[in-house]
Amino acid sequence: MKNEIDKLMKRMKVSAIYAEGMSSSSPTMYYLLNGVNLYGHYVKKQGKRAYVIHYPIEREVAREIGHKLISSTRYGLRKIYEKYPDRIKAKAYFIKAILDDLKVKGNVAFYGESQMGAAYNFLKQLTKLDKRVKVCYEASKSLITIARETKDSEEVKRIKSIGQRVVRAFNDMVKTVQQMKVKKNTVMKDRKRKLLIGDLRAMLRKHLFEGNLINSDGMIVAQGRDAGVPHNSGNDRSAVKLGQTIVFDIFPREIEGGYFFDFTRTICFGHASKEIKEVYATVKDAQDYVMDMLKVGKRNIDIERSLCKFFEKRGHPTLLNSPKTQVGYCHTLGHGVGLDIHESPSFGYVKTNKDRIKPGHVFTVEPGLYYPDKGYGVRLEDVVYVDRRGKIVNLTRCVRRLVAEI
Amino acid sequence: MKNEIDKLMKRMKVSAIYAEGMSSSSPTMYYLLNGVNLYGHYVKKQGKRAYVIHYPIEREVAREIGHKLISSTRYGLRKIYEKYPDRIKAKAYFIKAILDDLKVKGNVAFYGESQMGAAYNFLKQLTKLDKRVKVCYEASKSLITIARETKDSEEVKRIKSIGQRVVRAFNDMVKTVQQMKVKKNTVMKDRKRKLLIGDLRAMLRKHLFEGNLINSDGMIVAQGRDAGVPHNSGNDRSAVKLGQTIVFDIFPREIEGGYFFDFTRTICFGHASKEIKEVYATVKDAQDYVMDMLKVGKRNIDIERSLCKFFEKRGHPTLLNSPKTQVGYCHTLGHGVGLDIHESPSFGYVKTNKDRIKPGHVFTVEPGLYYPDKGYGVRLEDVVYVDRRGKIVNLTRCVRRLVAEI
Repeated sequence: MKNEIDKLMKRMKVSAIYAEGMSSSSPTMYYLLNGVNLYGHYVKKQGKRAYVIHYPIEREVAREIGHKLISSTRYGLRKIYEKYPDRIKAKAYFIKAILDDLKVKGNVAFYGESQMGAAYNFLKQLTKLDKRVKVCYEASKSLITIARETKDSEEVKRIKSIGQRVVRAFNDMVKTVQQMKVKKNTVMKDRKRKLLIGDLRAMLRKHLFEGNLINSDGMIVAQGRDAGVPHNSGNDRSAVKLGQTIVFDIFPREIEGGYFFDFTRTICFGHASKEIKEVYATVKDAQDYVMDMLKVGKRNIDIERSLCKFFEKRGHPTLLNSPKTQVGYCHTLGHGVGLDIHESPSFGYVKTNKDRIKPGHVFTVEPGLYYPDKGYGVRLEDVVYVDRRGKIVNLTRCVRRLVAEI
Repeated sequence: MKNEIDKLMKRMKVSAIYAEGMSSSSPTMYYLLNGVNLYGHYVKKQGKRAYVIHYPIEREVAREIGHKLISSTRYGLRKIYEKYPDRIKAKAYFIKAILDDLKVKGNVAFYGESQMGAAYNFLKQLTKLDKRVKVCYEASKSLITIARETKDSEEVKRIKSIGQRVVRAFNDMVKTVQQMKVKKNTVMKDRKRKLLIGDLRAMLRKHLFEGNLINSDGMIVAQGRDAGVPHNSGNDRSAVKLGQTIVFDIFPREIEGGYFFDFTRTICFGHASKEIKEVYATVKDAQDYVMDMLKVGKRNIDIERSLCKFFEKRGHPTLLNSPKTQVGYCHTLGHGVGLDIHESPSFGYVKTNKDRIKPGHVFTVEPGLYYPDKGYGVRLEDVVYVDRRGKIVNLTRCVRRLVAEI
């Protein structure tokens, strides 16, 4: 949690945090700048208030952040860049000036999205110039990853509210389709035109937008065999057919930057085959099975393993018994959700994954079964929150029903 | 341009490019993966076709990229992560396996947005493990920055089309307001409710969305004194008043990731004072003055200096004659626009800025004058493209008219 940053700094022996970037494109900066949209530099020493170095034209918006402010003009930026045509060196001198001014030394955690090579060369230069600064080595999770992994009540409220809007968008779309006519097993938009997967996507987008949400990373609306490949985002030109599984995986973000939600339902319009019904029931049971298993302190990979065994018992291959399978249950159970769509904690099945269920976690529970060659795939995804007392709260209030009558 | 990457690699003595990340959040990956939405690793050796290492669940979407594909399973990812609990080390072993496999050595440019400290420690590990690989030192612009700086005709077509949709959204909003009634110098949404800045913003958002665009970084709709601070994004609760400058700075992106546009107009509803009219005319003249000056080969900072002199002659302070000014002309002329809202080339006034106007450049021309204490600010911003023959093409087709009658 954000209010634990100081405690974490102490525990992880981090003397200061330095971060830079634009909050609209850097979730880390968004987090550290309390959601204020700005390009800036963030510096916080252990036990002290944070500073933000901002540019003069952003002096007004900077005031909303709530940190101490310093104008970049204080560091003679232009002179530095005129003296050093080597921009990496120039940047190192600029940041050194900031760190000197704020008396930063010791083990410093450096954050902010940067091109890899540029970050490497910059930090090499900086530590050459400033021998008192050492780049913190975060061998497993970074401090900021750990802080962001547990959400405070304000964050949970926002995520929950996004979830409600997503479910509303989904239900509205389904209801609209249910009022359409059917011709030769195909849903018709009007008397002449078939309803296309692209139309479903457009409806969802519109409803999400009305809820101030935007799914800019390509939501999944995948039918039939496309639904059988977990990250196939679907073919917009396919006509919507009765009896085909359609996987809707919707993961929008608040429009002006902020939190994500992640939601999946699978439906068949009209009817479903016995086989699909059975597979759907298995996925639904699997989700319930996991929900019952969630408990503070439990290791994520133990949950993952139990789920794999559950699927295997019902005759489906998993990554546990056949690590290269592309059918059956062929991904992991879930992931943390927050300012990134995928963040910590993880359910990645490697023994070195030490993640355990913790109060404050917000993560997805998304079992699925995939058989592209048989022409279908099923996934169900809810987001859960572990509250302060360890209670598991499902933030996704939406029925799981395979067939949508039409 | 993208098709010059090989030529640039040769000229800049880069033996290979390695990049990683998710194209939806990394403009570099979006560029290198040809706009396909994926998390992956990109490797290209000089003179050879590019490879993309992708995860099995994304095998179908990966095919749309057009590069050679390798599944990540080939490198025994899970085993590596089980062997090394230190995730930085594990990642270094994983990437080393890829680079070994593809026989990459020499001067390698590393791209992909990463946390600064993590990138530093990872590349330190990798170069310790793999002595044949050296991290390319890009002292001024990186290869990828140079490639992205000049746009090919497909890119220009997209940017131009976005511009048309932005102008349409703006004009529609203005027309709607012009049909409203006025009461005591305030625009009325209906008989009882005042029109607010937030309503203007919402209208713009809606129109942009209808054009498949989204301004997720907080567009500027700033009135009166707020307009006098360049990056003040405006107060949604202010009522729209006649005779006040309103700066509309709209910079949306294609909805599912891609290119940006950047557009600014300043208007006063109803009427404008003589002083504001004069300042507006000066900014308009300044923009024309710059447009006439643009010529292939000309240095950007020479253009910037001439513009400052132009403003100074008309009695306005600039960053040239008073580097700390926060009134008058207190920012730079413009910036490149593409997959980032701010990219190369730059008009930053430092002598070491060697940027010159080049065919393929797409950049903003946005002079402005700001007097918050007098209660106003004016900015006009068009995007121009330098075509293959060096002709300057204005991609912003929108009249510049201060007063919008109501």
